This record gives sequence, C-alpha cells and structure tokens, in this order.
Amino acid sequence: MPAQYNSVVAAVNNKNANRARMLISCPDRPGIVSAVSQFLYEHGANIIQSDQYTMDPEGGMFFIRFEFELKDMDRELPVIVEDFTRVADRFDMKWHTFRASRKKRIAIFVSKEDHCLMELLWQWQSGELDADISMVISNHNDMREQVESFGIPYHHIPVTADTKAEAERKQIEVIADKVDMIVLARYMQIVSPKFIEQFPNRIINIHHSFLPAFIGGKPYAQAYQRGVKIIGATAHYVTEELDGGPIIEQDVQRVTHRHNVDELKRMGRTIEKVVLARAVKWHLEDRILVHQNKTVVFN
Amino acid sequence: MPAQYNSVVAAVNNKNANRARMLISCPDRPGIVSAVSQFLYEHGANIIQSDQYTMDPEGGMFFIRFEFELKDMDRELPVIVEDFTRVADRFDMKWHTFRASRKKRIAIFVSKEDHCLMELLWQWQSGELDADISMVISNHNDMREQVESFGIPYHHIPVTADTKAEAERKQIEVIADKVDMIVLARYMQIVSPKFIEQFPNRIINIHHSFLPAFIGGKPYAQAYQRGVKIIGATAHYVTEELDGGPIIEQDVQRVTHRHNVDELKRMGRTIEKVVLARAVKWHLEDRILVHQNKTVVFN
Amino acid sequence: MPAQYNSVVAAVNNKNANRARMLISCPDRPGIVSAVSQFLYEHGANIIQSDQYTMDPEGGMFFIRFEFELKDMDRELPVIVEDFTRVADRFDMKWHTFRASRKKRIAIFVSKEDHCLMELLWQWQSGELDADISMVISNHNDMREQVESFGIPYHHIPVTADTKAEAERKQIEVIADKVDMIVLARYMQIVSPKFIEQFPNRIINIHHSFLPAFIGGKPYAQAYQRGVKIIGATAHYVTEELDGGPIIEQDVQRVTHRHNVDELKRMGRTIEKVVLARAVKWHLEDRILVHQNKTVVFN
Amino acid sequence: MPAQYNSVVAAVNNKNANRARMLISCPDRPGIVSAVSQFLYEHGANIIQSDQYTMDPEGGMFFIRFEFELKDMDRELPVIVEDFTRVADRFDMKWHTFRASRKKRIAIFVSKEDHCLMELLWQWQSGELDADISMVISNHNDMREQVESFGIPYHHIPVTADTKAEAERKQIEVIADKVDMIVLARYMQIVSPKFIEQFPNRIINIHHSFLPAFIGGKPYAQAYQRGVKIIGATAHYVTEELDGGPIIEQDVQRVTHRHNVDELKRMGRTIEKVVLARAVKWHLEDRILVHQNKTVVFN
Repeated sequence: MPAQYNSVVAAVNNKNANRARMLISCPDRPGIVSAVSQFLYEHGANIIQSDQYTMDPEGGMFFIRFEFELKDMDRELPVIVEDFTRVADRFDMKWHTFRASRKKRIAIFVSKEDHCLMELLWQWQSGELDADISMVISNHNDMREQVESFGIPYHHIPVTADTKAEAERKQIEVIADKVDMIVLARYMQIVSPKFIEQFPNRIINIHHSFLPAFIGGKPYAQAYQRGVKIIGATAHYVTEELDGGPIIEQDVQRVTHRHNVDELKRMGRTIEKVVLARAVKWHLEDRILVHQNKTVVFN
Repeated sequence: MPAQYNSVVAAVNNKNANRARMLISCPDRPGIVSAVSQFLYEHGANIIQSDQYTMDPEGGMFFIRFEFELKDMDRELPVIVEDFTRVADRFDMKWHTFRASRKKRIAIFVSKEDHCLMELLWQWQSGELDADISMVISNHNDMREQVESFGIPYHHIPVTADTKAEAERKQIEVIADKVDMIVLARYMQIVSPKFIEQFPNRIINIHHSFLPAFIGGKPYAQAYQRGVKIIGATAHYVTEELDGGPIIEQDVQRVTHRHNVDELKRMGRTIEKVVLARAVKWHLEDRILVHQNKTVVFN
Repeated sequence: MPAQYNSVVAAVNNKNANRARMLISCPDRPGIVSAVSQFLYEHGANIIQSDQYTMDPEGGMFFIRFEFELKDMDRELPVIVEDFTRVADRFDMKWHTFRASRKKRIAIFVSKEDHCLMELLWQWQSGELDADISMVISNHNDMREQVESFGIPYHHIPVTADTKAEAERKQIEVIADKVDMIVLARYMQIVSPKFIEQFPNRIINIHHSFLPAFIGGKPYAQAYQRGVKIIGATAHYVTEELDGGPIIEQDVQRVTHRHNVDELKRMGRTIEKVVLARAVKWHLEDRILVHQNKTVVFN
Repeated sequence: MPAQYNSVVAAVNNKNANRARMLISCPDRPGIVSAVSQFLYEHGANIIQSDQYTMDPEGGMFFIRFEFELKDMDRELPVIVEDFTRVADRFDMKWHTFRASRKKRIAIFVSKEDHCLMELLWQWQSGELDADISMVISNHNDMREQVESFGIPYHHIPVTADTKAEAERKQIEVIADKVDMIVLARYMQIVSPKFIEQFPNRIINIHHSFLPAFIGGKPYAQAYQRGVKIIGATAHYVTEELDGGPIIEQDVQRVTHRHNVDELKRMGRTIEKVVLARAVKWHLEDRILVHQNKTVVFN
C-alpha cells in the first residue's frame, strides 16, 4: 500500500475501535425507539447516529439502525448482546449487532471487464472501503498480474457449460470460511441457487442497466435498440431470480441518438463502477436492511 | 394573456418571420452536406444553425437539420421547395420544410390530473411554446373553468368501454382540420390504431415511468413494488404498441425507501410536466426526426 | 378549488389532525435520544418518524426531529409542552413543537416574473403545500387577476428608491398578524434588515443562481459570461447579508455554449420554481433547523 | 498493457488511420458552411461529422468542426492544408487540421492525491483515451511505483517556495519537445505565467469545486462552511488568472448537512476524476474551441 494511505487507514481503524452498529426489523408499534434507546443508554452506549423508518404507521414494519460507541467494546458488547434478547422478544425483533472494527472479508468475482474491480481495489487501497479483500476469483486469467500487485490472491477457475457445477465446487472450496460477502464485479456467469443460498443477501451484483429495464444479456444493445435517452446501472443483492433481487443503488446518465452501443458501454462503465462501489460501501457499513424483495438503506 | 408576456411573444414572432427549417433523412454517402449547403447558399438562405448525424459512416442513414433565414420568405421559400427536388432525388432524400412563423396548432387531451396541462398552458402563455393551442379535449368536465379562463375551447367527450369508438368519432369531428399535433397530457385512455394513423409521429404522450420499465397502468405502484431508487417519466410518439413508440425525452429523480406510492406520484408530477413540455417544445421547433422506432433530436 | 382536489386536501387534513412535530437543538451528549423518546412514550405519543444529526460526536451540536401522533391532541399536547421543560433544561435544549393541523399562513411576494408564484399556487391548490396562502404582495399590478382567480387577496404596493421605507411600512400593515412566513417568489426588491428582523428564518427567497456563485443582480448574464456548463437555483432563508443566508435547497441543470442568456433564463425558471417549492414544503412540514448560517434539513 | 485491451486499441488505431479533423473560428457571414463543405467534397473528403455554432447570427462569431475521412491521408491532407488558405483568407478564418492518428503526447502533473491520475491511467490503458502518456511529473515521490508499473517515466521534481523557478526550469527540461498537452491531475502548485505561455489552451486543470464558487485553496472546507447542498468539480484550461480560465466541463453531486469536510472530499474525488477524464478526452479528440474566456465544446 502506498505510503500516503497509511494515515487514512490508521484513522479509520482508530475511529472504529469503539464503534458498533445494531440493525433491527420488527412489526411497528409504540415504544420501540424509546425501549431501544433507553436500553443502550443504560448499557453505557453513546448513540452516534440513529435512523428509523416505518413502512406504514398502522401495522407495517419498522426498521432501525443505531451506531454507537462503547468505552470497552470487548467487555460491554457481549453483555449488550446477551441482555438485548429481552427487548427483542418483547417486540418480536429480528436484529444483529456488528463491531465496526471487525472488517468484512470480500471475495470479488470478475470476468474480462476490469473497471469495477479496479475501482474497488483503488477505493480499498485509499481507505474508502473498510474491508479486507480476501481474494479475487475469475473465470479468466487476464487480471492476475494487476490483482497480485495489490498483494491479493487470484484464483483462476475456468467455467464452461459442462464444468459449471464443478467450477462452483472449486469456488466454494477456495472461499472456505475466509469470506463474509461476495461482489460480482461484472462477473458474466450466472450463479446457481445452491451457491446463492450460502450467502443470503451477501452477494452484490452490478447489472449494467437501469433495472427492471433490460434484464439479462446485452443491456446496452437493448437500450440502443429501444432508443432510451438515459442509461443506468443497478447494484442489487443476488437472488434466484435473474436480475430480480433487492435493489441497493442505481444511477444514470443522459445519452443521445449520437451514442452507439460501444459508446453506451464506455459511458456505462463509469456509472457501473460508481454505483457498485457505493453499494459495497453501504453493505460494509451495515447500512442496508432487506425486507421481502426491497432494501431499506440508511445512508 | 397577461400584459407582461406581450413583449416576449412579439419578440418571438418577429424573430420567426424570416426563418425556415429543413429536415432531411437519407442514406449516407459523400457530398450531402456540401450539396445542400451549396443549394441553400445559392438560393439566398443564410444558415443559422445546422445539425447532422450519421448512424454509421458505411451504409447507414444520414439526418440533417438546417435552420435558415430568407430575406423574402413568401417569395423565396416556394422556389426553394420547388428547386430542391432535384437535390433530393439525387440523394434519395425524405425531406420537409417548415416556416417558423407558421405556428403548429395543438389539441391537448387530458383526464383528471391537471399538472401537465397547466404546465403547457403556463409555458404557452409565457411565450415558451411557440404554438396555437386550439382546444382541450377531456373525458371529464373537471378542468373546463381553468381552460376556458385562458380563452381556449374545452370539449368534454366522455369515454366508456362501450362508447369508445363513438367518442373517438366525436374527437375527430371537433379536431376536424384545426389541429396539427396532439398532446396526451396524462390522458388515461388508450387511443385506437385508427386514430393514431391520422397523426403519424404527431401525437406525443407522457408516460409516468422510465420506459421501458413499468409499461401500462399504475407505474408508480410498480416502481414502489420493485423498490427502484430512481423514478422517471418518458415522452414518446404514440404508436400502435402501448408505451412502445419512439422515445423523445426522459428524465429521472432519486427516491428512497421512505417514499410511498403517493409520494412517488407527487414527485413524479414535476418530472412528467417538465419532460412533456420539453418534448412538445422540440416538436414545435422541428427538432425531431423519427427513424424506425427511434428519434434523432437536434436540440 | 377544482373538485378533483377536494379529496386530496381532505385526506391530508385528516392525517394531520393527530400529528405533532418537535424540533430540538442542543449540545451533544449521551442520553438525549433515550430521554426524549422515553418522555414521548410515557406521554402517550406514538413516534411516526425520528431523525437526528450529530455535528461531531465530541462536543458538537445535536439536532433531532420527532413526528408523533397523540390520541387527543387538544388535551395532551399542552401537557407535553409543559412537562418537557424539565427534559429541555437538563440538556440545555432549544426546542419547538408544532401541530401539523395548524396550517402556516404564507404571504407571497412577487414582482414581474410569475413562474414561481404560479407553481406555488398550483401546488397549494392540488394539496401538495399544506398551508394557507393569506395574500400576495407585489410591487406591480400585473398578476392581480391570476391571483384573485384563486380567491387570494392581492396587494399592489409600488416600490421606488424614494418610497422604499414607506412601502415596507405598508407591507407590514397588510401583513399585520395574518402571516407566519414570507416567500419571496422572484421578488426583485431588497428587503431591509428591519423587515427581516420580524421574520427570523421565516423568509424564504429563491436566488436564480447556484450560490455562492453569482450573487446579486443578473446571475444568468454572469453565468453566460463565465461560460459555466451547469446553471442552478438556490432557496435560502433571508438574512441581512445579500444572498448570504442559510441555504435550504439547490438544484442544477446542464447547459452548453449554445444557450444564450435568454435561454439560460428560460431553463432556469423550471429549476427555480421546483427548488423554491421544495424549500417551502420542507419549511411547512417543520423539517428545517437553522444553526449558525447553515440548515439541517430532515427530508 | 493487459491482453484484453489490445483489440480495443488496435480497433481505435485502425479507425483513426484515415481520419482528420478541422476546427475553424471566424466572423459569421453567409456561405461559410457551403464554402467549406464544398471544398472538402471537391478534395475527396467524406464528412463523418460536422458541428457548428453561431454566437449571434448578426455579427457574431462562427465556430465549426468537421471530422472527415480521406482515402490516402499522407498524400491528400497536405494538399488540403495548402489549398484551404484560399477559403480561409476569404472568410478571415482561424483554423487547424489534426490527423486522428497522430496521438497527442501528455505530461500528467500530480501531487499527493492519486485518484485523478489513476483514472487517467486506467482509461488510457483500456483504450478510452487516445493519447500517448509521455511522463508523469510530481513534486513528491509517492506514486513512482504505481506509475512505472504502467511503463511510464516518472520525474520527481520537488518544489518549495524558494525553488519554484528552478523547479519549473527542470520541468521544462524534461518536457522538452516530448509533450503536446499538460494535465494537472490535482497538482497542488500554482503554475507561473511564463510556464503557461508555452502551452496556451493546452494545460487542463481540475479544480475541486463548482467554479466560480470556491476559488483557491480548500474548496471543500469552503463548501462545508457555506452549507451548500450540491458540490462539484470543474475542468478548465489554465490561464494566468487563478481558477479563472475557460471552463471545459463541470459536474456535481448532491450532499446534505450530514457530510463533513472529509466526506465531501471523498465524494468529490469521484466527480473530479470523471470530469477531468471527460475534458481530456474532448481535448484529445479536438472537440474544443476557445473564444475569449469561454469554450465551445462539440461533444
């Protein structure tokens, strides 16, 4: 890592040492904010940020995120986790706590286009993505040199129609227990339901269109064909339904009749990499809750 | 018309008196720009603006728009129109000329939502839409007072499943030969192929989604359901295929999980009216060519 | 008011009957969210939405907004207001409560450009601005007819260099105690410090540039001169410093070298009216806190 | 260069072999388009794209860009250049021709922030910037390894208040005649008028604000202080006036009160690198004309 980043990364680590986050979903009813904030206060947590969202005041779901500081994380967080079950049971909550200092470990999957990968690596290197990148897995060998120059292991696992199941078996093998989330950074293979099952709401894909328009292959060609005046990209959690999972982030750019398919692709690359990096950042910061097929993003 | 607009409108009219526009589509080959600009120069036309677009230098289509001034429009334009056939035949051109001073006459169709109608009326009144608004036709009577206060005739022609054909017959009757283009300003009835045939590429509709996403009814409910992070609106020429005609303009706005269907509708209204007004303006200024199912917009 | 709006407005009124909002600013320290949410819970308030922002966890300011429902507003809100002083004193809070059902009364000031006025009137009529528009005040008489057709009183108070003080005296007179906030909807006169003093953070102005670029007169001419590629508009609270008050909202649009000053003005009108309407809406919904010369907008 | 790019770059080179561009500025008068397009046609040039812009039909300036193909570039272009002086003299034109195949040679200047540099290198490597990057010059040594891994020479030339003149002398020395344009990719030193003089309208700088707001140092701190709701970046040609040269491109992103200075900087990096890369690309493709202190960009 270049010298100039050391101080940034050190600052982030230091800030995170005493931070934790709590994500909660539950049916809405009076008293939730009060109960949780009271609980955290009594357990010595200083709330830095809280966000909440009610789908519908009468009978909908309620979502809340707290970011808080503890004086002694190692001693106090386990007590919070143990004691909170009483609050959670009372309100029928699904909940998680996360230590900010426990970096999530990422496997990036990539094929032949490198722009999304390079953006993630650059942002990671400059301290903007607070994660460990454990490995890059590709069905091609092209980017090995680039990736290894960052000190990151590169696994070339070819995939053909015939070897798909075997290839996924190998992917699972190298991932083992070293990975918390997977980023499909323009990985041009469809991932099997069996694979997805092992990482529920923990695989982020970038689709190179403004979903739900132009699902499937060759979205820029489809966009050109339809004559749209704006193109976009969509980051979403991967589910069994192709390009149908919960949308995390989207962005767009104006185009005109002058842009042919190649130019749409070129312009699209910038949108894709920016949208994917934002989605990954929010996931790493525990800002995303999934409810049914939609996301609540507290950003 | 309020007094403050008179000077604007007078200025526009004055500027337009000697202006004409020529739109050309033809197969691309060398010498087209040269031939047309030479022709216009020799006929005393001073080119104010020219735009061109080649779909593909080798064997594609070529599109060009000239805006030019003539010293004596009434005498010189007919000569140009007559003489230009020689150039046009040589290059196999489809072409049109338009006098800027000949205002297009619009019929606006509307149902119960008035925001698009009101934006068009306001822009027309303030001199931003260089047109005559000949009439408003609605399947409801709600906006009669608003429309008539602008001095514009209002035709209430109810439509039910049973009376649809009869209603279209009446619409055609009141339109007669008084209308050059039709604007569907949130008109919530499907127009029949027979009706469309009479105004090829001269009916502009605003669809309240970012097409081709969310075709058909209740697009904001569809958008909410899918959890998109950006909503949009699309102005397009009406063809037989529902929401499938050539797209003229689109725009979008960010939304979050916090926006329910009603709020999406509310935010969407601003996008819809702005997008529709832009598309109508470009049509009025003869800036749009249609090729197959796409537009070339020289704006 | 046209018939189609009655149901919208009725729905808004109904929703608001039991709603109140509380805005708080105070120095940050542990326990604030807990104390306030506990207090509200014990007083029977059901929190619908809460937003908070900490400028800096160590020693900065803390801002919070609660929107909540009470079963019996008339009986319970006064109790809350009385009891809350104990919490407020403990944390050194500045705070306000607002009943959603008590519509704010607006005076709109306007000169010769009507687009911002018309947008506000249209949004108000369609139920999107939950306010009473008490009057329109103008230094010209041009828009009387338009305004009075909405059933809103119109006061023509001419202003010249010599009569400025006298004109402001008359404005104050017609405003009397009938107005809670003032919107300068392209009002082209500078308002005196003495006038501003009476409406601290309750006068919203729209400036037709992306502040702080192009302060003062003729911002579009300045923008054209400088050759910017994007123009914008800014809604801000009016303070003594010309175009220097706390910014509430801004938006922008791309332009090119092709757009002359008149076209910038024309395109700018759409941005101005949209930005101003958003800022007014947020003010009406008590979503804005001012700290020093900046706003915290919980939207 | 990674293998996957070879085909892209080869395709670009092939397309460019027979292409040339002509840029013209002159006082507007009738017959210019006709004369130039006639001239090109007679000299065997096939016009691929033409763009023109008239500042003001009566007595303003006229700008035109032609992109055309020749069958035999080496033989025909010199003839065109020789013969065109007759046309140019007749209309008092300033004009240039450029062979698309003659890649412009760039020196990138950089200090300690690497995001703009890395974006340019990545775009260059993937064939999106059709140029030769001759060298990187920095007042720090930090990025040597990154740059040299691309096979590009890295010159570390320290600059202090005392050694500024000497440092510029060294910069000129290493640049010698190896460079056609200079890109200041977050180079945090002010360049002297003497230096600028040698590269008129051929030095592009990225300023990290939406100019003309926040000229000079620490623009994100200024933006935070002023409480703007949108931040931006500006690419411009460098002139003697600090941050005052002709603007080539700008872009923006929404921010809120939640973003502190560090976050504005982080978000700004994405805007900066995208805006700078666009401006450099347009310069390389000869799409920019400068008139007085403004640009005409035919993109």
